[in-house]
Amino acid sequence: MSLAEKDKQYIWHPFTHLKYAEEPLNLVRGEGAYFIDDTGNRLFDGISSWWVNLHGHCHPYISKKVSEQLFTLEHAMFSGFTHQPAVQLAERLMAHLPGNQSKIFYSDNGSTAVEVALKMVIQYWHNLHKPKHTFIALENAYHGDTFGGMSVGERNVFNQAFGHLLFDVVRIPLPNKHNIEAVKEQFSAYCRTHDVAGFIFEPLVQGAAGMLMYEASYLDELIELAREQDVITIADEVMTGFGRTGRFFAVDYLEHKPDIMCLSKGLTGGYMPLGVTSCAQFIYNAYISDDKTRTFFHGHSYTANPTACSAALASLDLMEEEGTWKRIAEIEAGHHSCQVSLMTHPRVRQVRCRGTILAVELHTAEHTHYLNRAAESISEYFVKRHILLRPLGNILYVIPPYCSTGADLEHVYKTITEFLNQL
Amino acid sequence: MSLAEKDKQYIWHPFTHLKYAEEPLNLVRGEGAYFIDDTGNRLFDGISSWWVNLHGHCHPYISKKVSEQLFTLEHAMFSGFTHQPAVQLAERLMAHLPGNQSKIFYSDNGSTAVEVALKMVIQYWHNLHKPKHTFIALENAYHGDTFGGMSVGERNVFNQAFGHLLFDVVRIPLPNKHNIEAVKEQFSAYCRTHDVAGFIFEPLVQGAAGMLMYEASYLDELIELAREQDVITIADEVMTGFGRTGRFFAVDYLEHKPDIMCLSKGLTGGYMPLGVTSCAQFIYNAYISDDKTRTFFHGHSYTANPTACSAALASLDLMEEEGTWKRIAEIEAGHHSCQVSLMTHPRVRQVRCRGTILAVELHTAEHTHYLNRAAESISEYFVKRHILLRPLGNILYVIPPYCSTGADLEHVYKTITEFLNQL
Repeated sequence: MSLAEKDKQYIWHPFTHLKYAEEPLNLVRGEGAYFIDDTGNRLFDGISSWWVNLHGHCHPYISKKVSEQLFTLEHAMFSGFTHQPAVQLAERLMAHLPGNQSKIFYSDNGSTAVEVALKMVIQYWHNLHKPKHTFIALENAYHGDTFGGMSVGERNVFNQAFGHLLFDVVRIPLPNKHNIEAVKEQFSAYCRTHDVAGFIFEPLVQGAAGMLMYEASYLDELIELAREQDVITIADEVMTGFGRTGRFFAVDYLEHKPDIMCLSKGLTGGYMPLGVTSCAQFIYNAYISDDKTRTFFHGHSYTANPTACSAALASLDLMEEEGTWKRIAEIEAGHHSCQVSLMTHPRVRQVRCRGTILAVELHTAEHTHYLNRAAESISEYFVKRHILLRPLGNILYVIPPYCSTGADLEHVYKTITEFLNQL
Repeated sequence: MSLAEKDKQYIWHPFTHLKYAEEPLNLVRGEGAYFIDDTGNRLFDGISSWWVNLHGHCHPYISKKVSEQLFTLEHAMFSGFTHQPAVQLAERLMAHLPGNQSKIFYSDNGSTAVEVALKMVIQYWHNLHKPKHTFIALENAYHGDTFGGMSVGERNVFNQAFGHLLFDVVRIPLPNKHNIEAVKEQFSAYCRTHDVAGFIFEPLVQGAAGMLMYEASYLDELIELAREQDVITIADEVMTGFGRTGRFFAVDYLEHKPDIMCLSKGLTGGYMPLGVTSCAQFIYNAYISDDKTRTFFHGHSYTANPTACSAALASLDLMEEEGTWKRIAEIEAGHHSCQVSLMTHPRVRQVRCRGTILAVELHTAEHTHYLNRAAESISEYFVKRHILLRPLGNILYVIPPYCSTGADLEHVYKTITEFLNQL
């Protein structure tokens, strides 16, 4: 059997419509911002493989560092034991996180980083003997595919089968200059009518919802309000972290900082899964007690896996180089020029841009939706032109690795324009 | 600051009582069945770092294979794309899984492998327009720390703060020769009174519950009954897989095979997180439809991470060597001798043994419980004698890497006896 036949025989791919899915491309090599498939074709990874890759594929420096770790200490349990990669990574992350963050709890991916955050909040109130169980979330939110993550996420096609098994949350719209006062009123009303424990949000950009963007100033007002109402705030930076919005974290645009933060995706530079939930000291303090039952009983076998930590440390080394930030600024400038040139195009409903994220929402006969049929034709058009994109329905977006060159991006922008012109 | 001080400053360790926890040991190297700490002490990893390590730490063959992958294709998104490590691993796992298993769905750890299984079952019935939402689970079950996993797990100290946010399940006791008829009656009664969608269980050994063991024949009867009642069965082999029970999978002791299986822990030989949920073809078929909303909308950024798949492939190479099975049989024989010598010891309530798993339940003034205070003194006693154990309360257990020598294990058995004699 060929690899394609074996794939069909044995594999169930994620988020993949089984009946009409195209045969998947067989990728054999990664090289900087490019993949090479089994026919020798080179493909520009225009979405950083689901927003994870920062410095390119098979980066010699990261691969070397991880290899060394594999021959030193590949893994060790993390209760009763510690190791340098985990401690060093925590220390170095702390230098980039807001000043109010104090402790690092490791897990394995973005979903678990969110589950840990939700549990930290609920048990915080439990430990204080002030039990509260309701979360406020944003409309259209996406926080992962596990039951806790789905519960705080928007109810939609992603989770419609599981509604009976999800816990209830209350929701507020994305704030903007027109609705901010009404949103704040709604937030306060929920605090009166519900036992609101926490407020979770994707800061500035809602990724899976279709790269929806909103202003830092309105989020600042909501965080300030949450603090007044004794509500713990969780920033889900799984997608936005590590330079994606133009600063190290999206919360760097805020005046008021969240109590808890969730990190994953770019954390390891796109090499392997690792999750981090950081929190302020007052959260941690609620778990220090003579009473053993106040312990945070959460953990995964591979918590703080040294191999993944070594990838994260090597990726941080590159993140801290001036050249990386110069490239991020150049990508941002390129995206802005593209935005300006496309925003009046007749096939375009809106172009959104923040940092290294560029999203083009197409005018289609169907409404804007994840299952919009435009997606397949977009993917196909771009793959034929050596660009890997995976649109969210009729929303085409570009989130390139930071090592992408000006020429790489010019080719992408040009292809987007050509695609729009032929519609 | 020293590494210990930095650890205290920045890290929140899993499952760790913050007030009285001992300073964690700083591990700097892994070498076969041993860790080396920062003072040069060698520690025998008696529980395979939470049951994950199979062939020893920093195994030259696995480390080399993973290193090669890091310079070839470290990661690629898995929707619309595929790669050899994922396909090859699926094919090779299939050769070891029961004949009814047909498709492999990848995720990142044991918790997510369980969440995927639960969702596969619920959406299966949803897609068939026969919605059912209740799971039958075993008493004392542990299926991970995410909200779905906690929901099907026993309600206990691990999740007491989160009870309001967990979905309801119904439970049956662990079957044995005395209660099997009553358990089956209860199972059937639940099928009459509830919309039972699935039955989830840890086959033969309930790990986190304290290495509770039960016979294959009674589980066989329950699986047969589930099939009669149109209930989908899920075997959570996260802990029991990859030789731990003396056969490749615990379900290899069964005549009736589960519809879905969850794998993690030993999957990568203990190198890094990876999860697998395998399923029978009839489950997959329910997702093949013209209707896009019947798609299984689950996925993690690092689904089928090639680096982790390469570790799993290298570990499988070693699992398939005759010498490994010889060692597994030798460990089993050693455990049995130890069991016989300890079962009448006055400080011992029960000794349980299955394959490479040996558990000694101590008589203590307190009842048997995860928070039993015996745990700290056991850990301390063994670490001083260069053995890493982490008891479940008053249940001391040994789950060694397969590369452990007869001398390694003799030292462990001897130390257990000395420990019991001085109580």
